[in-house]
Amino acid sequence: MPQHVVIIGAVALGPKAAARFKRLEPDSRVTMVDRGKLISYGGCGIPYFVSGDVNDAVELQKTAFHMVRDVEFFRATKDVDVRTETEALSIDRAAKTVTLRHLPTGREETLAYDKLVLAMGSRPSTLSVPGAQLRGIHTVHGLEAAQRIRELVSAGGVSRAVVVGAGFIGLELAVALADMWDVQTTVVEFRDQILPGVIGGNLARMAQKHMEDKGVVFRLGEQVRAFEGNSEGRVARVVTENAALEAELVIVAVGVRPNSELARSAGLAVSERGGIRVDEHLRTSDADIFAGGDCVELKHLITGSPAYLPLGSLANRQGRVIGTNLAGGESLFAGVVGSWCVKLFDLSAAGTGLTLAAAQTAGFDALCVHVSQLDRAHFYPDKGLMSLELVAERGTGRVLGMQGLGVNGDALVGRVNVVAALLSSKPTAEKLSGLEMAYSPPFAAALDILNVLGGVAENILAGRNRGIQADEFATLWAGRSDDAPYILDCRERTNVEDLLQKHPKHWHNIPQGELRERLAELPRDQAIVLVCNTGARSYEAFVTLAHAGFKNVVSVEGGMTAVMAANGLP
Amino acid sequence: MPQHVVIIGAVALGPKAAARFKRLEPDSRVTMVDRGKLISYGGCGIPYFVSGDVNDAVELQKTAFHMVRDVEFFRATKDVDVRTETEALSIDRAAKTVTLRHLPTGREETLAYDKLVLAMGSRPSTLSVPGAQLRGIHTVHGLEAAQRIRELVSAGGVSRAVVVGAGFIGLELAVALADMWDVQTTVVEFRDQILPGVIGGNLARMAQKHMEDKGVVFRLGEQVRAFEGNSEGRVARVVTENAALEAELVIVAVGVRPNSELARSAGLAVSERGGIRVDEHLRTSDADIFAGGDCVELKHLITGSPAYLPLGSLANRQGRVIGTNLAGGESLFAGVVGSWCVKLFDLSAAGTGLTLAAAQTAGFDALCVHVSQLDRAHFYPDKGLMSLELVAERGTGRVLGMQGLGVNGDALVGRVNVVAALLSSKPTAEKLSGLEMAYSPPFAAALDILNVLGGVAENILAGRNRGIQADEFATLWAGRSDDAPYILDCRERTNVEDLLQKHPKHWHNIPQGELRERLAELPRDQAIVLVCNTGARSYEAFVTLAHAGFKNVVSVEGGMTAVMAANGLP
Repeated sequence: MPQHVVIIGAVALGPKAAARFKRLEPDSRVTMVDRGKLISYGGCGIPYFVSGDVNDAVELQKTAFHMVRDVEFFRATKDVDVRTETEALSIDRAAKTVTLRHLPTGREETLAYDKLVLAMGSRPSTLSVPGAQLRGIHTVHGLEAAQRIRELVSAGGVSRAVVVGAGFIGLELAVALADMWDVQTTVVEFRDQILPGVIGGNLARMAQKHMEDKGVVFRLGEQVRAFEGNSEGRVARVVTENAALEAELVIVAVGVRPNSELARSAGLAVSERGGIRVDEHLRTSDADIFAGGDCVELKHLITGSPAYLPLGSLANRQGRVIGTNLAGGESLFAGVVGSWCVKLFDLSAAGTGLTLAAAQTAGFDALCVHVSQLDRAHFYPDKGLMSLELVAERGTGRVLGMQGLGVNGDALVGRVNVVAALLSSKPTAEKLSGLEMAYSPPFAAALDILNVLGGVAENILAGRNRGIQADEFATLWAGRSDDAPYILDCRERTNVEDLLQKHPKHWHNIPQGELRERLAELPRDQAIVLVCNTGARSYEAFVTLAHAGFKNVVSVEGGMTAVMAANGLP
Repeated sequence: MPQHVVIIGAVALGPKAAARFKRLEPDSRVTMVDRGKLISYGGCGIPYFVSGDVNDAVELQKTAFHMVRDVEFFRATKDVDVRTETEALSIDRAAKTVTLRHLPTGREETLAYDKLVLAMGSRPSTLSVPGAQLRGIHTVHGLEAAQRIRELVSAGGVSRAVVVGAGFIGLELAVALADMWDVQTTVVEFRDQILPGVIGGNLARMAQKHMEDKGVVFRLGEQVRAFEGNSEGRVARVVTENAALEAELVIVAVGVRPNSELARSAGLAVSERGGIRVDEHLRTSDADIFAGGDCVELKHLITGSPAYLPLGSLANRQGRVIGTNLAGGESLFAGVVGSWCVKLFDLSAAGTGLTLAAAQTAGFDALCVHVSQLDRAHFYPDKGLMSLELVAERGTGRVLGMQGLGVNGDALVGRVNVVAALLSSKPTAEKLSGLEMAYSPPFAAALDILNVLGGVAENILAGRNRGIQADEFATLWAGRSDDAPYILDCRERTNVEDLLQKHPKHWHNIPQGELRERLAELPRDQAIVLVCNTGARSYEAFVTLAHAGFKNVVSVEGGMTAVMAANGLP
């Protein structure tokens, strides 16, 4: 029997659900409403519009075949009725009606529904500090805000900008401003690393160094206390506890919050942090009301706990599931593992599942293993460095997450997607070490970096290797005394000459191939830190020393490659 | 208790097994023997050495840290004894000895083993036709053969070459000759498509067209009957049933055969096609003898039948498994799904699992679904076309394989590896449609092409869409009569103008957005072929026509994008 489906929100999930449902039930009717003028746009493209990579905002609204997804497009091609600049005021679940207000005219109307879809998305968090209302301070949410920022920078009036928040959007905007508009950009983040929560400190430091090399300045562990304006009421300075940063433009990207007030007032189950609760069919606590996208909370498939992951890709996939279920289907959205990727100048970062910190918070006895190596056969001319960190549970060897950096972004994201696809089936490190990966020299090494990562993790989990990360090495090095640490560099002499001269008390060299015959040269009473180029030879050396009865030995994971990427040469 | 392990073969699997085993059991002894002078080289890099991408053959023998993996390297860094130019003549399984012959001196020796590893690899198949022994006819197997080819082309004496065989190695060599040395190259293949057995005819045709656009000539469905020489005994012509092709260089790349004679004479189980039989621990029928790499047969995880897949990546992973098991471990190598990738000029091809033909041969009631779309958000400036074909089982929707082409090779291989990782757990098309893929505009569309592929397959499996492939369209078009086929192009008028003028009897246009209102214009008594740019709008149109009672309708999968990639514009 034909139904009337009302969808609140027409950016990502709404249009997808509408189109899917109409294809399954062409005789049913769909009304989609949205507060904004513009609908169905690729919000994740906003940084690329700000940068100028995307020339016109309307591009974000177009289909792949260059048609603008506006009201008329939905009417003609999808047979979906769209009302823009229309706010949903309330839901009467008993009567199965929604009350709407047309914003320009103020006219109200009550619409009956058979099924309702809540796709209201999120809104940006703001800073409650003095001066927060000054002109020139922007959040990046919605196309219209993006247009204002783009106008400002393209008019040439911005030479210095401050981005508050070093999450995805903050960093993407920092890249857009620094790279494309040559704006001197400072990122202020109150936590002590970039990409907090989604990547470990070691990789975060490497990514930060890359962005610093490109000219972005970071102030980590610093909080914005106030914004100060000029005589025209425009922002002029960002004041933190340590500094006053001059800026003509401030972008506040400190996260988003679910738009769930409508759901809450209607008595639907909403979590404490504000996410609408949904089941595996994306039904709310009312069986006739579905919800998805940035306004819902989802089950995290690793922790089993609710998670809030406002990602456009999830919204699109959920839209299809809701479309199917509106038509009486039984499509499931079991939960999320939390896959993401971001491009930071010439470096890409990506991850899935839990970071080490998140795993520990969730109660796992976890460890993190680092590998840095070339992403193709080392003899292939066009190759780049990739660094991966695997988070695994001690004892079981279960893989809980993986994060990485790479100069070939597609190659990095490919590895992350492989692990993501497996995560919910609880793979072990051993499984990764034997995974069948397509191989040819332009694409991978014969033993793919994922296989290597799984193998290294297996060895560390079994106690056959004991590693420290580049950031732990940096701490050790910063706190060095006259005779400690004892660093044994296992590379060939020519690679080590400079370091030996510079740090004769700490740096020592025995090439790995000579180690078995020169064990007598090593101190038995001192901790030994093994290092090589990437960690492969120092692992061999670790095995040799362990076999010879040396107990107090660690190997630097990722070797000097990781050390240099994070902090430069000692 | 320390053991003595003897390994026959020192190219890929042997060295890996030796190194892994020695790390686990440093007190045990390993002797590795090889017929050749050169050991432990990246054989898959040979085409890149021939092309000149890899400057010196010794690069293929080096580690990532620039050390040459020769006899001394294995002695010093791995504590492994290697004997080169040494052939294994026989195995006495009762006495647990191998008899070896040092080829330069002819000296024979008998070596006792506790465990034996067979890693003899494969040898190239040859053609039994007149003239096959002429100089200038080469197989590409081993570094020494590659060096001879490289010398020949770099000396400038080759202006025309014929490659026999359009498998991986044949095509890689054709690219090397045509691209880097500007040699006029013809590929002769007796089957009717390139990459036979690993990719469907539709994608094969697209890849072939790309190589033709780069200047390579193909003669498919043609067999070499003879080679003719000049007065100096060098090859001058390749004679097929249709032509005599002038050539100064001929490369024969018609597959490889396992080197298993040693195993067979020792009474080990060897399959009819010559692969040594091994269990999941990579043990042969003798519990003290392991085998792996190009000389064994493996279980195909989709068909359940034995398969012969001579791939360097498998050899490396098997080496680690054997190394572990030599040390008393229980590492498993359950089988293979058959993942591969190859770079063909600016286009990459990759796949995993079964092709449609292979699935049907294996007894599956299978179909193949094609998607062509951009590999990133369509508004992102730097993007390319990707084409994927999913092979799935009717009824269950089980995914049996996927093959694809893409201009961003890493992005393509990433998708293939995701499907490969899932294949053995029998995923359905629906699973792919909901797979969580990392998203950001520089890396993917919000709904990843894998999600789209899974969704399209789901619709076709459920009968909600009915498609034909670009090659079926080409056949239909080639056999057109005065008034059939009736092609309805669903794109906007401006995209179709040229085709309407050129083919007024066959080509018709109703933009998809106008279709519901213009149904009366369509013939009810004729088969209708729907086409658009990529298949998305023609699917929408299919739904509209099906709902309006049109029965005889198909939609072209991949749309005009696929049609043009395979055969150019009609």
